[in-house]
Amino acid sequence: MPKPEQAETRSRYQVFQPITTRWSDNDIYGHINNAVYHLFIDTTVTRYFMRHGLADVRTAPIIAVAAETGCTFRRPLTHPVEIEAGLRVDRIGTSSVRSGVGIFRKGEDEAAAWGHIVHVFVDRTSNRAVPIPPHIRHALEQIAV
Amino acid sequence: MPKPEQAETRSRYQVFQPITTRWSDNDIYGHINNAVYHLFIDTTVTRYFMRHGLADVRTAPIIAVAAETGCTFRRPLTHPVEIEAGLRVDRIGTSSVRSGVGIFRKGEDEAAAWGHIVHVFVDRTSNRAVPIPPHIRHALEQIAV
Amino acid sequence: MPKPEQAETRSRYQVFQPITTRWSDNDIYGHINNAVYHLFIDTTVTRYFMRHGLADVRTAPIIAVAAETGCTFRRPLTHPVEIEAGLRVDRIGTSSVRSGVGIFRKGEDEAAAWGHIVHVFVDRTSNRAVPIPPHIRHALEQIAV
Amino acid sequence: MPKPEQAETRSRYQVFQPITTRWSDNDIYGHINNAVYHLFIDTTVTRYFMRHGLADVRTAPIIAVAAETGCTFRRPLTHPVEIEAGLRVDRIGTSSVRSGVGIFRKGEDEAAAWGHIVHVFVDRTSNRAVPIPPHIRHALEQIAV
Repeated sequence: MPKPEQAETRSRYQVFQPITTRWSDNDIYGHINNAVYHLFIDTTVTRYFMRHGLADVRTAPIIAVAAETGCTFRRPLTHPVEIEAGLRVDRIGTSSVRSGVGIFRKGEDEAAAWGHIVHVFVDRTSNRAVPIPPHIRHALEQIAV
Repeated sequence: MPKPEQAETRSRYQVFQPITTRWSDNDIYGHINNAVYHLFIDTTVTRYFMRHGLADVRTAPIIAVAAETGCTFRRPLTHPVEIEAGLRVDRIGTSSVRSGVGIFRKGEDEAAAWGHIVHVFVDRTSNRAVPIPPHIRHALEQIAV
Repeated sequence: MPKPEQAETRSRYQVFQPITTRWSDNDIYGHINNAVYHLFIDTTVTRYFMRHGLADVRTAPIIAVAAETGCTFRRPLTHPVEIEAGLRVDRIGTSSVRSGVGIFRKGEDEAAAWGHIVHVFVDRTSNRAVPIPPHIRHALEQIAV
Repeated sequence: MPKPEQAETRSRYQVFQPITTRWSDNDIYGHINNAVYHLFIDTTVTRYFMRHGLADVRTAPIIAVAAETGCTFRRPLTHPVEIEAGLRVDRIGTSSVRSGVGIFRKGEDEAAAWGHIVHVFVDRTSNRAVPIPPHIRHALEQIAV
């Protein structure tokens, strides 16, 4: 414990986006804090949603809320570091989707950390699960593995 | 998906600490952002470490680094809300410990969210795993389940 | 430079609220990061707004947006530390208010840091300044100095 | 109040760096939270320090601590947005430096917000002010206005 897990590599992800780190991301040990990786995961996935149909999050009647998150840390990263976050879709259900995100130091093939987030699409007012809107589902299928 | 999981209740945790929320914790939907729960988890566990032998984190030769984190979200919380974080130790290994944290709205028995973090104790200089120091191990055993 | 300024004391503030700190608040030097104080300031002022008439920020037609912020740091604080944030209103205009916040270590009379924020009340849709709603103005006057 | 101030433009800054925004940067109104701008300011200034002689912040005997910060907000920004942060040095003292940072939306000449931070160089152990190290002073002079 923790169980040895095979490192994730770039080929397992479909699209990438750059992330700049911040002074405050480092904790007292000089490592980017573990919760900050969840900000990276969150930002990577929702950015894809926003590009593909969840455009106006301020007024959208259907929103995606996090139901589960997880992250495995392989090697510490320290600000300043150029990061590329890879994204893939692991599983698409009726109302929910599990997305995988790999956190790569620029130029490295092995992820420093990788995680996932399960989003459930809900009606903004009632907070009840609803089917994933077709145009978002279509976009998710483009990066499903 | 996500798999229905039985809600965690207070009786499953050993010690509790209050957490105050912040304006910035709410996202655009008015929910506390999922990564913020990882800040709660992180703070709850390391606070216990600091109280029991990891006192001067600025100079300690052995430090605890996160190897894995996870969180399940059952009900959204919105700032301002009074939170109590419950802590237990799920598993103690030679160099690592898995801690469980439940996030409770004050006065509620069912957790709004619950998560875990696996910390590995490492030599600060070499970054290699080392046995958990005896006084910290002793403290962890007090809240093991 | 920076100009010596007289330390702020508790008697200069009208209402207080506790703040719990987080592991991630500490930077690599073991000090609570300067931007985190702005989270404290922000939270303290908006909490007062929310208690006094800006209750449902998700749907309120008039919102308060920050126009200016500032903070002076006298003594570093390190997580974990019990903080009490003092609040006063320095100046009330037609559409805007300047609030002062003192950040005190529990039990200390001199502030470790103090800052201010100027909020402008605007129409949520047009983003134009509007007069401060009467019930909020009334609440602000209660703690004006 | 707040006093009308002339907008800052790109020509007033010496060096620029890109910043990527995060989902959590947006508050409930869909604006990047005011404290987040202080993270941008902080990151921009310390990045320059780190590039020019404050390289190993984990062990450096002299560190730069914030004594004062301020920010003026002209136009709200909303994640996702491409930001370029401009940096200049406003004033160099014996032990302290005041740096100015402008936050620009990519492609715009007028800053959406601008702020400053006064850092004091101190001995890490004694926490007492010390003269700015010569190589850092030299680097600061390159971008002084």
